[in-house]
Amino acid sequence: MKSLCAVDGVSCAGIKEGKYGLALIQASGMAAAVFTKNLFAASPVLLMKERMAGGRLDGIIVNSGNANVYTGEQGMADARRMAEIGASALGTTPDMIGVASTGVIGRFMKMEIVERQAAVVAGTVRSDAAAEDEAAAAIMTTDLFPKHACAKRDGFTVAGITKGSGMIAPNMGTMLGFLYTDAEVTVPALQEMLTRAVDRSFNRVVVDGDTSTNDSVFVTATGRRGPADPEELYGALEEVCISLAKQIARDGEGATKLIEVRVTGAEYEEDAAAVARTIVGSSLVKTAVYGEDPNWGRIIGAAGRAGVEFDPRMATVTIGEGDALVTLARRGEILADDKVNPEALAAAKDLMKGDTVIFGFDLGAGEASATAWGCDLTEKYVEINGKYTT
Amino acid sequence: MKSLCAVDGVSCAGIKEGKYGLALIQASGMAAAVFTKNLFAASPVLLMKERMAGGRLDGIIVNSGNANVYTGEQGMADARRMAEIGASALGTTPDMIGVASTGVIGRFMKMEIVERQAAVVAGTVRSDAAAEDEAAAAIMTTDLFPKHACAKRDGFTVAGITKGSGMIAPNMGTMLGFLYTDAEVTVPALQEMLTRAVDRSFNRVVVDGDTSTNDSVFVTATGRRGPADPEELYGALEEVCISLAKQIARDGEGATKLIEVRVTGAEYEEDAAAVARTIVGSSLVKTAVYGEDPNWGRIIGAAGRAGVEFDPRMATVTIGEGDALVTLARRGEILADDKVNPEALAAAKDLMKGDTVIFGFDLGAGEASATAWGCDLTEKYVEINGKYTT
Repeated sequence: MKSLCAVDGVSCAGIKEGKYGLALIQASGMAAAVFTKNLFAASPVLLMKERMAGGRLDGIIVNSGNANVYTGEQGMADARRMAEIGASALGTTPDMIGVASTGVIGRFMKMEIVERQAAVVAGTVRSDAAAEDEAAAAIMTTDLFPKHACAKRDGFTVAGITKGSGMIAPNMGTMLGFLYTDAEVTVPALQEMLTRAVDRSFNRVVVDGDTSTNDSVFVTATGRRGPADPEELYGALEEVCISLAKQIARDGEGATKLIEVRVTGAEYEEDAAAVARTIVGSSLVKTAVYGEDPNWGRIIGAAGRAGVEFDPRMATVTIGEGDALVTLARRGEILADDKVNPEALAAAKDLMKGDTVIFGFDLGAGEASATAWGCDLTEKYVEINGKYTT
Repeated sequence: MKSLCAVDGVSCAGIKEGKYGLALIQASGMAAAVFTKNLFAASPVLLMKERMAGGRLDGIIVNSGNANVYTGEQGMADARRMAEIGASALGTTPDMIGVASTGVIGRFMKMEIVERQAAVVAGTVRSDAAAEDEAAAAIMTTDLFPKHACAKRDGFTVAGITKGSGMIAPNMGTMLGFLYTDAEVTVPALQEMLTRAVDRSFNRVVVDGDTSTNDSVFVTATGRRGPADPEELYGALEEVCISLAKQIARDGEGATKLIEVRVTGAEYEEDAAAVARTIVGSSLVKTAVYGEDPNWGRIIGAAGRAGVEFDPRMATVTIGEGDALVTLARRGEILADDKVNPEALAAAKDLMKGDTVIFGFDLGAGEASATAWGCDLTEKYVEINGKYTT
């Protein structure tokens, strides 16, 4: 029997009926999680912030279609009831169940749908690729495709599924991530690894900056394959998180291109991350990428307002990578321009025609670096978000 | 002879030929200014940051079509040369001339155009309404209409012109403001008033967050009408700045509606301003306004990620004002919903049909308040900014 992307001890199932979906994931082990910092946190987020102190989970229940936000005491009771339904389906106690929701804000849960779907799904929990696809599809809202990733190492595996079209869906914006490994690891180490990996992946995705009320990432380590080298385990976890984050960025509403911004030469990683996020989040940069216009003036304009101190005379802006790298401007000198260097400008324009556009920005100040991901801004984004009616 | 919006001692003129324009403004007196904090500040901004220490100006020269940014030593020499040209045209010395530029980034100035246009304009400097229109039109880039405002008080007048379609024009983004009063005031008092008024007006306009490399606001007090009550003078200055800021917001690229967000009940004004700016800058709120969808979930989602600590259970969200005010949600209770209260939801939808949409957000935590302005996000914005080619 195949396990979920070959993670030993993990099985799952899911169902999607119109906008209402439900996934069950069975995985017993050490668990850690990170949650949204939005003040209007969803009921399941409030519940889980308390319960994750236990450091262990046997499984997770997730619904799509209703975010269970701004629902008061009734919402908290519904989140607790979801844990009971999950526990009953997976044969454990409610305190061992992780709960997550995504969907519309400000509506009470239709618990009869959760109960019915859980009853259907409970009988189909299994560890094969089709089950993983079902689970990934069940948690989608406006996502165009299910998202999963896997990193195999000698002796253990890390895998996961995620949903989110850029944390921005119309009134349903949420990024959820569910990660698994069969390596053995302590809870504090797992929490530290997850926090760091999320910071370098999901937190570097900028579609429109609208952090959701429900964003949650869980990781469970079943331990079935025994201890792993911490650095190797972290590397695999980060690889999975970055793969999932890039899939979210590419699935941004109306997006036609993935944008990757690599900032180097910073004094501190957080400085590099702030500059990378500001560039990739700039509406002017996003529209320029959509228009395939290598408009480096917009990149320096964004970098200059990122709130990071650096000497603008030392900065370098590039497009592309490896052999196909074009320097647009370096230390005050313009290197790709229709007058100064039209061949370089033409090469830069060519590098914008693909479905991935990579910008480099070097601050010339130190050794730290960070990468951020986003997508272009298109008429379709406006159409999707403007015409949505509650 | 009429003076510029009746500000005693102020005259001006302007010319616009295709994308290249030039305005001259003559006004001798105490002067103050505020400039962009973008690290890639334009050459004229770098020059003026030094020269404004003098605290006096006799006039201003402004060009549109080239921002004089990322142009190194040549750019600085061109900015100094602009001051000389302005001084020669207005009969004073270069150190008494304010310089500002707006337009494309990363191109060297065509100084022959500046010289020729200044020579033409110099002969037409005068103080009538047509001259003011000429000057306001000369500094436009992608603006759809010239912007001016005037506040008359017993004994003195404050007036001004501005350009900027939301600080966001395609590769030409800049907000410039030129303000005048015939009241008498000291330089420190004038600087303090300008900084405060700009903070409560231009700095509360959020179109896409792309602060320009060239943003500058100058104010000159000719003193012709003698001393004014400081509070009264500040009130008139703020009134003019807010009127100009709202005109900029309404002229956001592709915009169909002005959005005003009034945050109240904060502990500190800066907290209220941060929440107001985050709400009005949210792409999800902006698209909802375009779609005339009273989606308060997006408002609380934005407020909750503004970086301000408040108790979400105490918050209230409204739309409209005065007799036409609808409360959408208050202290955890949903008050306009297709199930709970469809009449209120219908009334809220009606309030989104006009060309101005007003949201209120009360934090329930204190007495401080702040207002911010923006515009809706439309397909047209993407079209304008995506299809622009350098």
